[in-house]
Amino acid sequence: MTGRTARRRVLRVSLPDEAGPAGQTVATQRADLLAAEEPLGIRVNGEAISLTMRTPGDDIDLAAGFLVGEGVLRSAADVAQIRICSGDRCGHGDHEGMGNIADVTLGARATVPAGLRRNFLTTSACGVCGKASIRDICQLPATDLAVDQVTVAPLMLAQLPGRLREAQRVFAATGGLHAAGVFTADGQLLTAREDVGRHNAVDKVVGWALREGRLPLTGCVLLVSGRASFELVQKAVMAGLPVLAAVSAPSSLAVELAEEAGLTLVGFLRGNSMNVYTGTQRIADAEQVLT
Amino acid sequence: MTGRTARRRVLRVSLPDEAGPAGQTVATQRADLLAAEEPLGIRVNGEAISLTMRTPGDDIDLAAGFLVGEGVLRSAADVAQIRICSGDRCGHGDHEGMGNIADVTLGARATVPAGLRRNFLTTSACGVCGKASIRDICQLPATDLAVDQVTVAPLMLAQLPGRLREAQRVFAATGGLHAAGVFTADGQLLTAREDVGRHNAVDKVVGWALREGRLPLTGCVLLVSGRASFELVQKAVMAGLPVLAAVSAPSSLAVELAEEAGLTLVGFLRGNSMNVYTGTQRIADAEQVLT
Repeated sequence: MTGRTARRRVLRVSLPDEAGPAGQTVATQRADLLAAEEPLGIRVNGEAISLTMRTPGDDIDLAAGFLVGEGVLRSAADVAQIRICSGDRCGHGDHEGMGNIADVTLGARATVPAGLRRNFLTTSACGVCGKASIRDICQLPATDLAVDQVTVAPLMLAQLPGRLREAQRVFAATGGLHAAGVFTADGQLLTAREDVGRHNAVDKVVGWALREGRLPLTGCVLLVSGRASFELVQKAVMAGLPVLAAVSAPSSLAVELAEEAGLTLVGFLRGNSMNVYTGTQRIADAEQVLT
Repeated sequence: MTGRTARRRVLRVSLPDEAGPAGQTVATQRADLLAAEEPLGIRVNGEAISLTMRTPGDDIDLAAGFLVGEGVLRSAADVAQIRICSGDRCGHGDHEGMGNIADVTLGARATVPAGLRRNFLTTSACGVCGKASIRDICQLPATDLAVDQVTVAPLMLAQLPGRLREAQRVFAATGGLHAAGVFTADGQLLTAREDVGRHNAVDKVVGWALREGRLPLTGCVLLVSGRASFELVQKAVMAGLPVLAAVSAPSSLAVELAEEAGLTLVGFLRGNSMNVYTGTQRIADAEQVLT
Protein backbone atom coordinates (compact mmCIF):
# COMPACT_ATOMS: atom_id res chain seq x y z
CA MET A 1 0.00 0.00 0.00
CA THR A 2 1.32 3.40 -0.93
CA GLY A 3 0.42 6.76 0.57
CA ARG A 4 -2.62 8.93 0.04
CA THR A 5 -0.92 11.12 -2.51
CA ALA A 6 1.54 10.50 -5.32
CA ARG A 7 4.06 12.98 -6.70
CA ARG A 8 4.21 13.37 -10.46
CA ARG A 9 5.83 15.62 -13.10
CA VAL A 10 3.26 17.59 -15.06
CA LEU A 11 3.36 20.00 -17.99
CA ARG A 12 1.45 23.14 -17.02
CA VAL A 13 0.20 24.94 -20.16
CA SER A 14 -1.05 28.52 -19.92
CA LEU A 15 -2.61 30.44 -22.77
CA PRO A 16 -1.75 34.11 -23.28
CA ASP A 17 -3.91 36.17 -20.95
CA GLU A 18 -6.29 38.21 -23.03
CA ALA A 19 -6.22 40.99 -20.48
CA GLY A 20 -2.44 41.24 -20.55
CA PRO A 21 0.07 42.04 -23.26
CA ALA A 22 0.03 39.85 -26.36
CA GLY A 23 2.03 36.77 -25.47
CA GLN A 24 2.70 33.15 -26.27
CA THR A 25 1.31 29.98 -24.87
CA VAL A 26 3.66 29.00 -22.07
CA ALA A 27 4.39 25.45 -20.96
CA THR A 28 6.32 24.69 -17.79
CA GLN A 29 7.37 21.43 -16.19
CA ARG A 30 6.53 21.20 -12.52
CA ALA A 31 5.83 18.70 -9.78
CA ASP A 32 2.23 17.94 -8.92
CA LEU A 33 0.59 15.97 -6.13
CA LEU A 34 -2.10 13.48 -7.14
CA ALA A 35 -4.69 11.75 -5.02
CA ALA A 36 -3.70 8.09 -4.83
CA GLU A 37 -6.15 5.51 -6.15
CA GLU A 38 -5.80 1.75 -5.67
CA PRO A 39 -8.17 -1.23 -5.58
CA LEU A 40 -9.34 -2.69 -2.27
CA GLY A 41 -11.02 -6.04 -2.20
CA ILE A 42 -13.34 -6.81 0.70
CA ARG A 43 -13.71 -10.40 1.90
CA VAL A 44 -16.16 -11.57 4.56
CA ASN A 45 -15.43 -14.89 6.25
CA GLY A 46 -13.16 -15.78 3.36
CA GLU A 47 -15.58 -14.89 0.58
CA ALA A 48 -14.83 -12.01 -1.82
CA ILE A 49 -17.84 -9.71 -1.95
CA SER A 50 -16.65 -6.36 -3.28
CA LEU A 51 -13.85 -4.59 -5.10
CA THR A 52 -13.64 -0.80 -4.85
CA MET A 53 -11.20 1.78 -6.22
CA ARG A 54 -10.25 3.92 -3.26
CA THR A 55 -7.64 6.24 -1.79
CA PRO A 56 -5.40 4.13 0.47
CA GLY A 57 -5.75 4.81 4.18
CA ASP A 58 -8.35 3.99 6.84
CA ASP A 59 -8.95 0.74 4.99
CA ILE A 60 -10.28 -1.04 8.07
CA ASP A 61 -12.84 1.73 8.54
CA LEU A 62 -13.70 1.56 4.83
CA ALA A 63 -14.42 -2.16 5.01
CA ALA A 64 -16.35 -1.84 8.27
CA GLY A 65 -18.42 1.11 7.05
CA PHE A 66 -19.20 -0.62 3.77
CA LEU A 67 -20.56 -3.59 5.70
CA VAL A 68 -22.65 -1.33 7.95
CA GLY A 69 -24.24 0.07 4.80
CA GLU A 70 -25.05 -3.44 3.64
CA GLY A 71 -26.62 -4.48 6.92
CA VAL A 72 -23.89 -6.97 7.86
CA LEU A 73 -22.49 -5.01 10.82
CA ARG A 74 -24.40 -3.04 13.44
CA SER A 75 -21.84 -2.71 16.20
CA ALA A 76 -18.19 -3.40 16.91
CA ALA A 77 -19.24 -6.70 18.52
CA ASP A 78 -20.21 -8.01 15.10
CA VAL A 79 -16.55 -7.98 14.06
CA ALA A 80 -14.08 -10.60 15.26
CA GLN A 81 -11.20 -9.22 13.18
CA ILE A 82 -10.46 -7.04 10.17
CA ARG A 83 -7.05 -7.69 8.67
CA ILE A 84 -5.53 -5.72 5.79
CA CYS A 85 -3.39 -7.97 3.59
CA SER A 86 -1.04 -6.60 1.02
CA GLY A 87 1.83 -8.08 -0.90
CA ASP A 88 3.04 -11.45 0.27
CA ARG A 89 1.54 -10.97 3.70
CA CYS A 90 -1.79 -11.99 2.22
CA GLY A 91 -0.67 -15.51 1.59
CA HIS A 92 -2.30 -15.43 -1.84
CA GLY A 93 0.69 -14.57 -3.99
CA ASP A 94 2.52 -11.37 -4.80
CA HIS A 95 0.46 -8.23 -5.27
CA GLU A 96 3.44 -6.01 -6.07
CA GLY A 97 1.81 -3.13 -4.25
CA MET A 98 -1.23 -3.17 -6.51
CA GLY A 99 -3.73 -5.21 -4.62
CA ASN A 100 -5.01 -4.80 -1.10
CA ILE A 101 -7.51 -6.97 0.65
CA ALA A 102 -9.58 -6.22 3.71
CA ASP A 103 -10.19 -9.62 5.26
CA VAL A 104 -13.19 -9.41 7.60
CA THR A 105 -13.98 -12.16 10.08
CA LEU A 106 -17.44 -11.77 11.57
CA GLY A 107 -18.22 -12.20 15.23
CA ALA A 108 -20.20 -15.23 16.37
CA ARG A 109 -23.57 -13.45 16.26
CA ALA A 110 -23.17 -11.69 12.90
CA THR A 111 -24.21 -13.38 9.70
CA VAL A 112 -23.99 -12.52 6.04
CA PRO A 113 -27.51 -11.85 4.73
CA ALA A 114 -28.52 -14.32 2.05
CA GLY A 115 -28.91 -11.57 -0.53
CA LEU A 116 -25.61 -9.82 0.20
CA ARG A 117 -23.51 -11.16 -2.59
CA ARG A 118 -26.36 -10.75 -5.04
CA ASN A 119 -26.55 -7.06 -4.24
CA PHE A 120 -23.13 -6.46 -5.74
CA LEU A 121 -22.84 -9.42 -8.00
CA THR A 122 -26.24 -9.46 -9.64
CA THR A 123 -25.75 -13.15 -10.20
CA SER A 124 -29.46 -13.83 -10.28
CA ALA A 125 -30.92 -14.44 -13.71
CA CYS A 126 -32.43 -10.99 -13.75
CA GLY A 127 -30.68 -8.48 -11.54
CA VAL A 128 -33.55 -6.15 -10.93
CA CYS A 129 -36.61 -8.25 -11.66
CA GLY A 130 -39.14 -8.85 -8.94
CA LYS A 131 -38.06 -5.80 -6.96
CA ALA A 132 -41.28 -3.89 -6.47
CA SER A 133 -40.03 -0.85 -4.56
CA ILE A 134 -36.99 1.04 -3.40
CA ARG A 135 -37.12 -0.92 -0.16
CA ASP A 136 -36.26 -4.05 -2.09
CA ILE A 137 -33.03 -2.78 -3.58
CA CYS A 138 -31.58 -1.63 -0.29
CA GLN A 139 -31.24 -2.87 3.26
CA LEU A 140 -33.55 -2.00 6.12
CA PRO A 141 -32.17 0.48 8.63
CA ALA A 142 -30.89 -0.66 11.98
CA THR A 143 -32.94 1.99 13.72
CA ASP A 144 -36.14 3.84 12.99
CA LEU A 145 -35.02 7.32 11.99
CA ALA A 146 -38.48 8.74 12.70
CA VAL A 147 -37.86 8.56 16.44
CA ASP A 148 -34.80 10.82 16.12
CA GLN A 149 -36.31 14.22 16.87
CA VAL A 150 -33.10 16.24 16.73
CA THR A 151 -33.37 19.69 15.17
CA VAL A 152 -30.60 21.59 13.39
CA ALA A 153 -30.31 25.32 12.79
CA PRO A 154 -29.80 26.62 9.23
CA LEU A 155 -27.03 28.91 10.49
CA MET A 156 -25.17 25.89 11.90
CA LEU A 157 -25.64 23.92 8.67
CA ALA A 158 -24.29 26.81 6.60
CA GLN A 159 -21.04 26.67 8.56
CA LEU A 160 -20.39 22.95 7.99
CA PRO A 161 -18.91 23.07 4.46
CA GLY A 162 -16.21 25.47 5.66
CA ARG A 163 -15.42 23.25 8.63
CA LEU A 164 -15.17 20.18 6.42
CA ARG A 165 -12.84 21.97 4.00
CA GLU A 166 -10.58 22.95 6.89
CA ALA A 167 -10.32 19.28 7.76
CA GLN A 168 -9.46 18.28 4.19
CA ARG A 169 -5.72 18.29 4.27
CA VAL A 170 -5.22 16.04 1.26
CA PHE A 171 -7.77 17.91 -0.80
CA ALA A 172 -5.86 21.11 -0.28
CA ALA A 173 -2.85 19.41 -1.82
CA THR A 174 -4.41 17.54 -4.74
CA GLY A 175 -7.80 19.09 -5.49
CA GLY A 176 -8.93 15.59 -6.30
CA LEU A 177 -10.78 14.15 -3.36
CA HIS A 178 -14.31 13.90 -2.11
CA ALA A 179 -14.91 14.34 1.61
CA ALA A 180 -17.43 13.22 4.19
CA GLY A 181 -17.74 14.51 7.75
CA VAL A 182 -19.91 13.64 10.73
CA PHE A 183 -20.98 16.53 12.94
CA THR A 184 -22.97 16.83 16.14
CA ALA A 185 -26.28 18.71 15.97
CA ASP A 186 -24.53 21.86 17.19
CA GLY A 187 -21.88 21.67 14.46
CA GLN A 188 -18.94 20.04 16.21
CA LEU A 189 -16.89 17.90 13.80
CA LEU A 190 -16.58 14.32 15.06
CA THR A 191 -14.55 12.95 12.16
CA ALA A 192 -13.83 13.57 8.47
CA ARG A 193 -12.44 11.37 5.73
CA GLU A 194 -11.41 11.88 2.11
CA ASP A 195 -11.34 9.56 -0.85
CA VAL A 196 -11.36 9.54 -4.65
CA GLY A 197 -14.80 7.92 -4.26
CA ARG A 198 -17.55 9.77 -2.45
CA HIS A 199 -19.08 6.51 -1.24
CA ASN A 200 -15.73 5.41 0.18
CA ALA A 201 -15.40 8.62 2.18
CA VAL A 202 -18.82 7.92 3.72
CA ASP A 203 -17.91 4.29 4.41
CA LYS A 204 -14.77 5.46 6.19
CA VAL A 205 -16.60 7.80 8.59
CA VAL A 206 -19.26 5.16 9.29
CA GLY A 207 -16.56 2.56 9.90
CA TRP A 208 -14.92 4.98 12.33
CA ALA A 209 -18.24 5.30 14.16
CA LEU A 210 -18.60 1.52 14.37
CA ARG A 211 -15.11 1.17 15.79
CA GLU A 212 -15.75 3.94 18.33
CA GLY A 213 -18.99 2.36 19.49
CA ARG A 214 -21.01 5.34 18.23
CA LEU A 215 -23.50 3.52 16.00
CA PRO A 216 -26.27 4.38 15.37
CA LEU A 217 -25.23 8.01 14.84
CA THR A 218 -28.39 9.36 16.45
CA GLY A 219 -28.68 13.15 16.48
CA CYS A 220 -25.77 13.64 14.06
CA VAL A 221 -25.34 15.27 10.65
CA LEU A 222 -23.45 13.74 7.73
CA LEU A 223 -22.01 16.24 5.24
CA VAL A 224 -20.73 15.16 1.83
CA SER A 225 -18.71 17.36 -0.49
CA GLY A 226 -20.50 16.54 -3.74
CA ARG A 227 -23.86 15.29 -4.85
CA ALA A 228 -26.25 13.12 -2.82
CA SER A 229 -26.95 9.89 -4.68
CA PHE A 230 -29.26 7.03 -3.76
CA GLU A 231 -26.23 5.09 -2.52
CA LEU A 232 -25.21 7.81 -0.05
CA VAL A 233 -28.72 8.12 1.35
CA GLN A 234 -28.75 4.37 1.89
CA LYS A 235 -25.45 4.52 3.75
CA ALA A 236 -26.66 7.39 5.95
CA VAL A 237 -29.89 5.57 6.80
CA MET A 238 -28.07 2.36 7.65
CA ALA A 239 -25.76 4.26 10.01
CA GLY A 240 -28.75 5.77 11.80
CA LEU A 241 -27.95 9.34 10.73
CA PRO A 242 -31.04 11.59 10.85
CA VAL A 243 -29.61 14.34 8.61
CA LEU A 244 -27.63 14.16 5.35
CA ALA A 245 -26.40 17.42 3.85
CA ALA A 246 -24.73 17.73 0.45
CA VAL A 247 -22.93 20.65 -1.12
CA SER A 248 -24.43 19.81 -4.51
CA ALA A 249 -27.64 18.34 -5.94
CA PRO A 250 -29.46 15.17 -4.88
CA SER A 251 -30.84 12.70 -7.39
CA SER A 252 -34.50 11.82 -7.66
CA LEU A 253 -34.00 8.39 -6.12
CA ALA A 254 -31.99 9.89 -3.26
CA VAL A 255 -34.94 12.12 -2.37
CA GLU A 256 -37.39 9.26 -2.73
CA LEU A 257 -35.45 6.97 -0.39
CA ALA A 258 -34.79 9.81 2.10
CA GLU A 259 -38.51 10.49 2.31
CA GLU A 260 -39.37 6.84 2.76
CA ALA A 261 -36.73 6.34 5.45
CA GLY A 262 -37.52 9.54 7.37
CA LEU A 263 -34.12 11.14 6.68
CA THR A 264 -33.71 14.91 6.48
CA LEU A 265 -32.00 15.56 3.14
CA VAL A 266 -30.39 18.95 2.50
CA GLY A 267 -28.86 19.83 -0.87
CA PHE A 268 -27.06 22.80 -2.44
CA LEU A 269 -25.67 23.74 0.98
CA ARG A 270 -23.61 26.70 -0.21
CA GLY A 271 -23.00 30.17 1.07
CA ASN A 272 -26.04 31.40 2.94
CA SER A 273 -28.69 29.08 1.60
CA MET A 274 -29.74 25.47 1.18
CA ASN A 275 -32.55 23.30 -0.18
CA VAL A 276 -34.35 20.97 2.23
CA TYR A 277 -35.87 18.10 0.26
CA THR A 278 -37.25 15.87 2.98
CA GLY A 279 -37.67 15.77 6.75
CA THR A 280 -38.17 19.53 7.13
CA GLN A 281 -39.39 19.00 10.71
CA ARG A 282 -35.75 18.73 11.80
CA ILE A 283 -34.84 22.17 10.43
CA ALA A 284 -35.21 24.79 13.17
CA ASP A 285 -37.33 27.80 12.15
CA ALA A 286 -38.64 25.89 9.16
CA GLU A 287 -42.17 26.83 10.23
CA GLN A 288 -41.76 30.42 9.12
CA VAL A 289 -42.48 29.50 5.55
CA LEU A 290 -43.28 32.15 2.97
CA THR A 291 -45.53 30.94 0.19
CA MET B 1 -38.65 4.11 -17.37
CA THR B 2 -39.29 7.67 -16.31
CA GLY B 3 -37.76 10.86 -17.69
CA ARG B 4 -34.33 12.34 -17.15
CA THR B 5 -35.57 14.79 -14.55
CA ALA B 6 -38.11 14.63 -11.76
CA ARG B 7 -40.06 17.55 -10.31
CA ARG B 8 -40.14 17.89 -6.55
CA ARG B 9 -41.28 20.37 -3.86
CA VAL B 10 -38.36 21.75 -1.88
CA LEU B 11 -37.95 24.07 1.09
CA ARG B 12 -35.47 26.78 0.17
CA VAL B 13 -33.88 28.22 3.34
CA SER B 14 -31.93 31.49 3.16
CA LEU B 15 -30.02 32.99 6.04
CA PRO B 16 -30.12 36.76 6.60
CA ASP B 17 -27.60 38.38 4.28
CA GLU B 18 -24.85 39.93 6.36
CA ALA B 19 -24.46 42.67 3.80
CA GLY B 20 -28.13 43.62 3.87
CA PRO B 21 -30.42 44.88 6.62
CA ALA B 22 -30.75 42.70 9.67
CA GLY B 23 -33.36 40.08 8.85
CA GLN B 24 -34.67 36.67 9.60
CA THR B 25 -33.94 33.29 8.15
CA VAL B 26 -36.45 32.87 5.34
CA ALA B 27 -37.87 29.56 4.16
CA THR B 28 -39.92 29.27 0.99
CA GLN B 29 -41.61 26.33 -0.67
CA ARG B 30 -40.85 25.99 -4.34
CA ALA B 31 -40.65 23.45 -7.15
CA ASP B 32 -37.28 21.98 -8.01
CA LEU B 33 -36.05 19.78 -10.85
CA LEU B 34 -33.93 16.77 -9.89
CA ALA B 35 -31.73 14.59 -12.06
CA ALA B 36 -33.46 11.22 -12.31
CA GLU B 37 -31.58 8.16 -11.03
CA GLU B 38 -32.66 4.56 -11.57
CA PRO B 39 -30.96 1.17 -11.71
CA LEU B 40 -30.11 -0.43 -15.06
CA GLY B 41 -29.14 -4.08 -15.17
CA ILE B 42 -27.01 -5.24 -18.10
CA ARG B 43 -27.37 -8.81 -19.35
CA VAL B 44 -25.22 -10.41 -22.03
CA ASN B 45 -26.62 -13.48 -23.79
CA GLY B 46 -29.01 -13.94 -20.90
CA GLU B 47 -26.45 -13.63 -18.12
CA ALA B 48 -26.60 -10.67 -15.69
CA ILE B 49 -23.19 -9.04 -15.50
CA SER B 50 -23.68 -5.55 -14.12
CA LEU B 51 -26.07 -3.27 -12.27
CA THR B 52 -25.52 0.48 -12.44
CA MET B 53 -27.38 3.48 -11.03
CA ARG B 54 -27.89 5.84 -13.95
CA THR B 55 -29.96 8.66 -15.36
CA PRO B 56 -32.58 7.09 -17.67
CA GLY B 57 -32.08 7.76 -21.36
CA ASP B 58 -29.70 6.46 -24.04
CA ASP B 59 -29.77 3.13 -22.25
CA ILE B 60 -28.82 1.17 -25.36
CA ASP B 61 -25.75 3.37 -25.78
CA LEU B 62 -24.96 2.95 -22.09
CA ALA B 63 -25.01 -0.83 -22.33
CA ALA B 64 -23.04 -0.85 -25.58
CA GLY B 65 -20.41 1.60 -24.32
CA PHE B 66 -20.02 -0.30 -21.07
CA LEU B 67 -19.28 -3.47 -23.05
CA VAL B 68 -16.77 -1.64 -25.26
CA GLY B 69 -14.93 -0.64 -22.10
CA GLU B 70 -14.84 -4.26 -21.00
CA GLY B 71 -13.52 -5.54 -24.31
CA VAL B 72 -16.69 -7.41 -25.28
CA LEU B 73 -17.67 -5.16 -28.20
CA ARG B 74 -15.40 -3.58 -30.81
CA SER B 75 -17.83 -2.67 -33.56
CA ALA B 76 -21.54 -2.60 -34.26
CA ALA B 77 -21.19 -6.00 -35.95
CA ASP B 78 -20.49 -7.55 -32.54
CA VAL B 79 -24.07 -6.80 -31.48
CA ALA B 80 -27.02 -8.83 -32.74
CA GLN B 81 -29.56 -6.93 -30.62
CA ILE B 82 -29.86 -4.70 -27.57
CA ARG B 83 -33.32 -4.66 -26.09
CA ILE B 84 -34.42 -2.49 -23.17
CA CYS B 85 -36.98 -4.31 -21.04
CA SER B 86 -39.00 -2.55 -18.42
CA GLY B 87 -42.14 -3.45 -16.53
CA ASP B 88 -43.98 -6.50 -17.70
CA ARG B 89 -42.47 -6.26 -21.17
CA CYS B 90 -39.39 -7.95 -19.74
CA GLY B 91 -41.23 -11.21 -19.19
CA HIS B 92 -39.63 -11.49 -15.76
CA GLY B 93 -42.40 -10.08 -13.61
CA ASP B 94 -43.52 -6.60 -12.72
CA HIS B 95 -40.85 -3.95 -12.19
CA GLU B 96 -43.29 -1.16 -11.32
CA GLY B 97 -41.11 1.34 -13.09
CA MET B 98 -38.14 0.66 -10.84
CA GLY B 99 -36.11 -1.83 -12.77
CA ASN B 100 -34.76 -1.60 -16.28
CA ILE B 101 -32.74 -4.22 -18.06
CA ALA B 102 -30.56 -3.84 -21.12
CA ASP B 103 -30.66 -7.26 -22.71
CA VAL B 104 -27.68 -7.63 -25.05
CA THR B 105 -27.45 -10.44 -27.59
CA LEU B 106 -23.98 -10.74 -29.07
CA GLY B 107 -23.29 -11.25 -32.76
CA ALA B 108 -21.98 -14.59 -33.94
CA ARG B 109 -18.31 -13.56 -33.82
CA ALA B 110 -18.35 -11.82 -30.43
CA THR B 111 -17.69 -13.75 -27.25
CA VAL B 112 -17.76 -12.91 -23.58
CA PRO B 113 -14.18 -12.97 -22.24
CA ALA B 114 -13.70 -15.64 -19.61
CA GLY B 115 -12.81 -13.09 -16.95
CA LEU B 116 -15.66 -10.67 -17.66
CA ARG B 117 -18.00 -11.60 -14.89
CA ARG B 118 -15.15 -11.87 -12.44
CA ASN B 119 -14.19 -8.28 -13.16
CA PHE B 120 -17.41 -7.01 -11.63
CA LEU B 121 -18.33 -9.87 -9.45
CA THR B 122 -15.00 -10.65 -7.82
CA THR B 123 -16.21 -14.17 -7.33
CA SER B 124 -12.71 -15.56 -7.30
CA ALA B 125 -11.42 -16.55 -3.90
CA CYS B 126 -9.24 -13.45 -3.75
CA GLY B 127 -10.49 -10.58 -5.87
CA VAL B 128 -7.18 -8.86 -6.44
CA CYS B 129 -4.61 -11.54 -5.74
CA GLY B 130 -2.21 -12.57 -8.42
CA LYS B 131 -2.64 -9.39 -10.40
CA ALA B 132 0.87 -8.16 -10.90
CA SER B 133 0.32 -4.94 -12.80
CA ILE B 134 -2.26 -2.42 -13.93
CA ARG B 135 -2.58 -4.31 -17.19
CA ASP B 136 -4.04 -7.23 -15.32
CA ILE B 137 -6.93 -5.35 -13.78
CA CYS B 138 -8.11 -3.86 -17.05
CA GLN B 139 -8.71 -4.95 -20.60
CA LEU B 140 -6.26 -4.53 -23.46
CA PRO B 141 -7.10 -1.77 -25.91
CA ALA B 142 -8.61 -2.59 -29.30
CA THR B 143 -6.04 -0.37 -31.01
CA ASP B 144 -2.52 0.77 -30.27
CA LEU B 145 -2.91 4.40 -29.18
CA ALA B 146 0.76 5.09 -29.87
CA VAL B 147 0.14 5.11 -33.64
CA ASP B 148 -2.39 7.95 -33.26
CA GLN B 149 -0.22 10.99 -33.95
CA VAL B 150 -2.97 13.60 -33.75
CA THR B 151 -2.01 16.91 -32.14
CA VAL B 152 -4.34 19.28 -30.33
CA ALA B 153 -3.89 22.98 -29.64
CA PRO B 154 -4.12 24.29 -26.07
CA LEU B 155 -6.37 27.12 -27.29
CA MET B 156 -8.78 24.57 -28.75
CA LEU B 157 -8.73 22.49 -25.54
CA ALA B 158 -9.47 25.56 -23.43
CA GLN B 159 -12.69 26.11 -25.38
CA LEU B 160 -14.06 22.59 -24.88
CA PRO B 161 -15.51 22.95 -21.35
CA GLY B 162 -17.66 25.87 -22.52
CA ARG B 163 -18.89 23.90 -25.50
CA LEU B 164 -19.75 20.92 -23.34
CA ARG B 165 -21.66 23.11 -20.89
CA GLU B 166 -23.68 24.56 -23.77
CA ALA B 167 -24.67 21.04 -24.70
CA GLN B 168 -25.72 20.17 -21.12
CA ARG B 169 -29.38 20.92 -21.20
CA VAL B 170 -30.31 18.79 -18.22
CA PHE B 171 -27.46 20.06 -16.13
CA ALA B 172 -28.69 23.60 -16.62
CA ALA B 173 -31.98 22.51 -15.10
CA THR B 174 -30.82 20.33 -12.21
CA GLY B 175 -27.20 21.14 -11.47
CA GLY B 176 -26.80 17.47 -10.68
CA LEU B 177 -25.27 15.71 -13.65
CA HIS B 178 -21.86 14.77 -14.93
CA ALA B 179 -21.20 15.16 -18.63
CA ALA B 180 -18.95 13.60 -21.25
CA GLY B 181 -18.39 14.86 -24.77
CA VAL B 182 -16.42 13.63 -27.78
CA PHE B 183 -14.78 16.29 -29.94
CA THR B 184 -12.77 16.23 -33.14
CA ALA B 185 -9.15 17.40 -32.94
CA ASP B 186 -10.22 20.86 -34.11
CA GLY B 187 -12.85 21.15 -31.39
CA GLN B 188 -16.08 20.19 -33.14
CA LEU B 189 -18.52 18.47 -30.76
CA LEU B 190 -19.54 15.05 -32.07
CA THR B 191 -21.80 14.06 -29.20
CA ALA B 192 -22.40 14.74 -25.52
CA ARG B 193 -24.22 12.83 -22.80
CA GLU B 194 -25.13 13.47 -19.19
CA ASP B 195 -25.67 11.15 -16.25
CA VAL B 196 -25.66 11.07 -12.45
CA GLY B 197 -22.62 8.79 -12.89
CA ARG B 198 -19.53 10.09 -14.67
CA HIS B 199 -18.68 6.59 -15.94
CA ASN B 200 -22.20 6.22 -17.35
CA ALA B 201 -21.88 9.48 -19.31
CA VAL B 202 -18.67 8.13 -20.87
CA ASP B 203 -20.28 4.75 -21.62
CA LYS B 204 -23.11 6.59 -23.38
CA VAL B 205 -20.85 8.55 -25.75
CA VAL B 206 -18.78 5.43 -26.49
CA GLY B 207 -21.94 3.44 -27.15
CA TRP B 208 -23.07 6.20 -29.53
CA ALA B 209 -19.75 5.88 -31.38
CA LEU B 210 -20.14 2.10 -31.63
CA ARG B 211 -23.64 2.47 -33.06
CA GLU B 212 -22.44 5.13 -35.54
CA GLY B 213 -19.58 2.93 -36.74
CA ARG B 214 -17.00 5.42 -35.41
CA LEU B 215 -14.93 3.09 -33.22
CA PRO B 216 -12.05 3.37 -32.61
CA LEU B 217 -12.35 7.11 -31.99
CA THR B 218 -8.97 7.83 -33.58
CA GLY B 219 -7.94 11.48 -33.56
CA CYS B 220 -10.69 12.50 -31.13
CA VAL B 221 -10.77 14.12 -27.68
CA LEU B 222 -12.96 12.95 -24.78
CA LEU B 223 -13.85 15.65 -22.25
CA VAL B 224 -15.33 14.78 -18.85
CA SER B 225 -16.87 17.31 -16.50
CA GLY B 226 -15.29 16.09 -13.29
CA ARG B 227 -12.25 14.15 -12.18
CA ALA B 228 -10.34 11.60 -14.24
CA SER B 229 -10.31 8.25 -12.46
CA PHE B 230 -8.62 5.00 -13.42
CA GLU B 231 -11.97 3.74 -14.69
CA LEU B 232 -12.43 6.65 -17.11
CA VAL B 233 -8.93 6.26 -18.51
CA GLN B 234 -9.64 2.59 -19.12
CA LYS B 235 -12.85 3.44 -20.97
CA ALA B 236 -11.08 6.05 -23.13
CA VAL B 237 -8.29 3.64 -24.01
CA MET B 238 -10.70 0.85 -24.93
CA ALA B 239 -12.60 3.24 -27.24
CA GLY B 240 -9.34 4.15 -29.00
CA LEU B 241 -9.43 7.78 -27.87
CA PRO B 242 -5.93 9.36 -27.95
CA VAL B 243 -6.79 12.31 -25.67
CA LEU B 244 -8.76 12.46 -22.40
CA ALA B 245 -9.31 15.89 -20.84
CA ALA B 246 -10.90 16.48 -17.44
CA VAL B 247 -12.06 19.66 -15.82
CA SER B 248 -10.77 18.47 -12.44
CA ALA B 249 -7.92 16.35 -11.04
CA PRO B 250 -6.78 12.90 -12.18
CA SER B 251 -5.94 10.16 -9.70
CA SER B 252 -2.53 8.55 -9.44
CA LEU B 253 -3.71 5.33 -11.06
CA ALA B 254 -5.37 7.24 -13.88
CA VAL B 255 -2.04 8.85 -14.73
CA GLU B 256 -0.20 5.54 -14.43
CA LEU B 257 -2.56 3.74 -16.81
CA ALA B 258 -2.64 6.68 -19.25
CA GLU B 259 1.16 6.60 -19.46
CA GLU B 260 1.27 2.87 -19.97
CA ALA B 261 -1.43 2.96 -22.66
CA GLY B 262 -0.03 5.98 -24.54
CA LEU B 263 -3.02 8.21 -23.80
CA THR B 264 -2.66 11.99 -23.54
CA LEU B 265 -4.20 12.91 -20.18
CA VAL B 266 -5.10 16.55 -19.48
CA GLY B 267 -6.43 17.67 -16.09
CA PHE B 268 -7.59 20.90 -14.47
CA LEU B 269 -8.75 22.17 -17.87
CA ARG B 270 -10.18 25.47 -16.61
CA GLY B 271 -10.07 29.03 -17.84
CA ASN B 272 -6.84 29.65 -19.70
CA SER B 273 -4.70 26.81 -18.41
CA MET B 274 -4.41 23.05 -18.06
CA ASN B 275 -2.11 20.33 -16.72
CA VAL B 276 -0.80 17.73 -19.17
CA TYR B 277 0.08 14.57 -17.25
CA THR B 278 1.00 12.15 -20.03
CA GLY B 279 1.40 12.05 -23.80
CA THR B 280 2.63 15.63 -24.12
CA GLN B 281 3.74 14.94 -27.71
CA ARG B 282 0.13 15.42 -28.79
CA ILE B 283 -0.07 18.95 -27.36
CA ALA B 284 0.83 21.49 -30.06
CA ASP B 285 3.52 23.99 -28.97
CA ALA B 286 4.41 21.80 -26.02
CA GLU B 287 8.06 22.02 -27.09
CA GLN B 288 8.41 25.59 -25.92
CA VAL B 289 8.88 24.48 -22.38
CA LEU B 290 10.20 26.85 -19.76
CA THR B 291 12.14 25.17 -17.02
